[in-house]
Amino acid sequence: MEREHNLVPEDILWKRFLYRIIYRSDTKLGKLFDIILLALILTSTAIIMMESVPQLDKRFHYTFLILEWIISIFFTAEYWSRIAVLKNKKQYIFSFFGIIDFFALVPFYLSFFFPVTKYFLIFRMLRMLRIFRIFNLLDFMNDGYLIVKALKNSSRKIYIFLLFLVIFSVIVGSLMFMVEGGRPGFETIPQSIYWAVVTVTTVGYGDVSPITPLGKFFAVILMLAGYSIIAVPTGIVTAEMRNKRQNLEKICDRCGNDDIDDDARYCKQCGKKLA
Amino acid sequence: MEREHNLVPEDILWKRFLYRIIYRSDTKLGKLFDIILLALILTSTAIIMMESVPQLDKRFHYTFLILEWIISIFFTAEYWSRIAVLKNKKQYIFSFFGIIDFFALVPFYLSFFFPVTKYFLIFRMLRMLRIFRIFNLLDFMNDGYLIVKALKNSSRKIYIFLLFLVIFSVIVGSLMFMVEGGRPGFETIPQSIYWAVVTVTTVGYGDVSPITPLGKFFAVILMLAGYSIIAVPTGIVTAEMRNKRQNLEKICDRCGNDDIDDDARYCKQCGKKLA
Amino acid sequence: MEREHNLVPEDILWKRFLYRIIYRSDTKLGKLFDIILLALILTSTAIIMMESVPQLDKRFHYTFLILEWIISIFFTAEYWSRIAVLKNKKQYIFSFFGIIDFFALVPFYLSFFFPVTKYFLIFRMLRMLRIFRIFNLLDFMNDGYLIVKALKNSSRKIYIFLLFLVIFSVIVGSLMFMVEGGRPGFETIPQSIYWAVVTVTTVGYGDVSPITPLGKFFAVILMLAGYSIIAVPTGIVTAEMRNKRQNLEKICDRCGNDDIDDDARYCKQCGKKLA
Amino acid sequence: MEREHNLVPEDILWKRFLYRIIYRSDTKLGKLFDIILLALILTSTAIIMMESVPQLDKRFHYTFLILEWIISIFFTAEYWSRIAVLKNKKQYIFSFFGIIDFFALVPFYLSFFFPVTKYFLIFRMLRMLRIFRIFNLLDFMNDGYLIVKALKNSSRKIYIFLLFLVIFSVIVGSLMFMVEGGRPGFETIPQSIYWAVVTVTTVGYGDVSPITPLGKFFAVILMLAGYSIIAVPTGIVTAEMRNKRQNLEKICDRCGNDDIDDDARYCKQCGKKLA
Repeated sequence: MEREHNLVPEDILWKRFLYRIIYRSDTKLGKLFDIILLALILTSTAIIMMESVPQLDKRFHYTFLILEWIISIFFTAEYWSRIAVLKNKKQYIFSFFGIIDFFALVPFYLSFFFPVTKYFLIFRMLRMLRIFRIFNLLDFMNDGYLIVKALKNSSRKIYIFLLFLVIFSVIVGSLMFMVEGGRPGFETIPQSIYWAVVTVTTVGYGDVSPITPLGKFFAVILMLAGYSIIAVPTGIVTAEMRNKRQNLEKICDRCGNDDIDDDARYCKQCGKKLA
Repeated sequence: MEREHNLVPEDILWKRFLYRIIYRSDTKLGKLFDIILLALILTSTAIIMMESVPQLDKRFHYTFLILEWIISIFFTAEYWSRIAVLKNKKQYIFSFFGIIDFFALVPFYLSFFFPVTKYFLIFRMLRMLRIFRIFNLLDFMNDGYLIVKALKNSSRKIYIFLLFLVIFSVIVGSLMFMVEGGRPGFETIPQSIYWAVVTVTTVGYGDVSPITPLGKFFAVILMLAGYSIIAVPTGIVTAEMRNKRQNLEKICDRCGNDDIDDDARYCKQCGKKLA
Repeated sequence: MEREHNLVPEDILWKRFLYRIIYRSDTKLGKLFDIILLALILTSTAIIMMESVPQLDKRFHYTFLILEWIISIFFTAEYWSRIAVLKNKKQYIFSFFGIIDFFALVPFYLSFFFPVTKYFLIFRMLRMLRIFRIFNLLDFMNDGYLIVKALKNSSRKIYIFLLFLVIFSVIVGSLMFMVEGGRPGFETIPQSIYWAVVTVTTVGYGDVSPITPLGKFFAVILMLAGYSIIAVPTGIVTAEMRNKRQNLEKICDRCGNDDIDDDARYCKQCGKKLA
Repeated sequence: MEREHNLVPEDILWKRFLYRIIYRSDTKLGKLFDIILLALILTSTAIIMMESVPQLDKRFHYTFLILEWIISIFFTAEYWSRIAVLKNKKQYIFSFFGIIDFFALVPFYLSFFFPVTKYFLIFRMLRMLRIFRIFNLLDFMNDGYLIVKALKNSSRKIYIFLLFLVIFSVIVGSLMFMVEGGRPGFETIPQSIYWAVVTVTTVGYGDVSPITPLGKFFAVILMLAGYSIIAVPTGIVTAEMRNKRQNLEKICDRCGNDDIDDDARYCKQCGKKLA
């Protein structure tokens, strides 16, 4: 929406045309473009995954290479188009997805000059995040926003909870370092903290587990704690979600208040009867 | 209910009689039929399980075979009866349970022509789903519908959450593939993603676990994330269930109170007699 | 309360006295009795635990034996007293705690005639359940009832959920039996079901874990399912608890309705203004 | 706040000045002091962790030693200052954080007389708890109080739940001791209880797992129980948090609506202007 006026003013028709296809999905072509984009992102991700499997890479090495070339060229073209059709180019380039798009392309072009190591693939993987934008354009994400909003509103409480959890794990980890001495998995404090987090989050790999009776006793307490305090983030988010069940479409037409609960019959700001 | 008018119009009495027994449970015979069906489904499932245990199969092979014959003949008769008593036969044949009933019988009849492999048993296992229909007929499922309804209403949010979780796991898995190199369990990206899902869902088999300090550090972050975001599906479903509890239609027309219990005769806020 | 009139009518004073001590805790002696009982139950449990540890049993065998004698004699005396002070003796003997008290004593007396095996100790362990009754008498359990009530009210939904979970696990287990063939941990269907439950409940021992890529793929889906559907029991119980936040003390003095919400100002049954 | 009047009455200016810096954070210097404190606590914790890693300790032993000296001197100075600026010195010395501050310093001064063993490090780790006080001063903790309040209000219910969980685990553990005999991990009752807690809390290390079919069957039941009853603490805390959100004192005196947001000026149910 806010990008409409961002078009080049003397925009020749094809720019307006392209803008509509790329940034919108209210036309058939725009929808098609989004679906092609989605398909290519998934293909690209699948190729990266399969390349990492030696057996597959050996057999299909050249197929993967050619597909990567095609996809990379498409994404490069897309990247330039996205910039070209905008007047305020910085708005896209330095946006979240603009940066992701850029870094996802970098490894491909670097590979002409350097041998690309696996350390670059994470950039290409980040491209998956664009799926959310496409789904957003295709209108699948209305409900998603409610989740994100509830998480954002409760993020501060969750951070405090995580801070508490980390400090708790550090102290318990140190305690276990004292208790379990230098037994395997408890050789250092950081390792003991790793064990504490594995335990309190109820993951429980079992690569490290207490050996002495006292260690097992503390472990039992830690597990019971972890099992109980999982209620805290859940309670936070649930209370927030419950709270957010407000009617997003209703607006008071006298005072403009848009924070209107589903069950409200009068505006809580100006007292007007709602339609 | 919608099947009543589905009977053959010139229906001879026994068809109407059979229909009532098979599709309903408001008669004693109908209830008995359901209970026999339930017993046979459980027996059939138990036999399939026991057949897979070599010691048991060796000892009771022929008992199992005979029981399977009996049960299969019963289910075949039941399948044909279900079709016979209906006018619009397609309605059952292509219904969810009609398809399940059909495929659950196929392996038995195929075994006359081919050696039946274990790959067929899953079809016979699907028969267990019919337990839900029987319980439904026997009226045990009123509350079950509330669960299903809450899940259905929140399914879209849960899909978005799962999509997020999958993308998150893929990215974290790729990151760990970079960090843990080719260490056991992190040889390929798909394997690393498998580890990421095992960790973020707090399952934590321990068949794969991080080895390097950096890997453990990322694992700790992933665990804390998994421990916190479990709040999201919980919050979604809880908010939905809460919502489904109130009588959403009743409202006090004097004070506008809409928190009205099913059994209320007066408004608890202003004391007005409710219509 | 309902036991008061259960006293022997011609009850000599000591019976009334003893009754008050044993079944009530509104006197100092009654409270003392409860605390002694609590201490003995905990001691008894501790002894049973320690007896199972060979090192401790070797060293303190006779101490344990003597303590057991003393405790058993006390509990026997208590058992007879409980019966003696009541008129309607069956009410206690066949009550939940009466049966537990009886079976907790049986192993001790059997040991005079037979060598007692460890298979009896579970009866003695059940004695721990009496802690709840003592806590109840000592008035620590008001909040506990709210939990139990919420669980009871939602039990039917939880049973349906568990039924679904079991059927789901059986089907997934069978599927994995097909996929993972006879690989370790997936040799039989029951074993595969065991793995499915371990996975879907996010316990994840890791004693059994999928080996083939397809198996890992199904495992990932199962884990994501388990991670999401944990929301269901949580949602059920939360919705129920939220609902039960009613004022347990308020009663409408016109119609006797005691189902009064905290925020009610009028009785919802008769419309009377509440004090 | 309650400490303002706690200043030495004839307080020379620097005491008032120091008090403001140390105990408050409403001045720039006070904020700086808090941030330095935070940095030193984190550094101190990091050093203790790194000292426990042999490779790091070997290389940086003297760096760590010098840093510890500096930090310990700073904390000693801080400890004395905190006491010095107060009139009622006991208020700080015997406060929760006063005790922590004291014990965190003890190991350093003991090390002059005795060889300090690792058993002291837990005291120094407790210093991390002070992070909460600093965050509180810096006003990051408003939301944290809501969490703590909700936990406090529901603590009694959670204790009862934990009591139930412990008794349940003890009984199930004893049962498994009987079932799994002396198999590895089930040699004694305490060990079997350890397994039961590991299972019911869905941690599932896998260091102990059932071997016999009957043991696996009981384990499956225990897992399903653990998976379901996690709903209880969650429900308790969620119900409590939900409750804490509303403005419990405001009520509309025309219609009795008590679901009134903090920012409401008119009743959303009847439109009355709120006082």
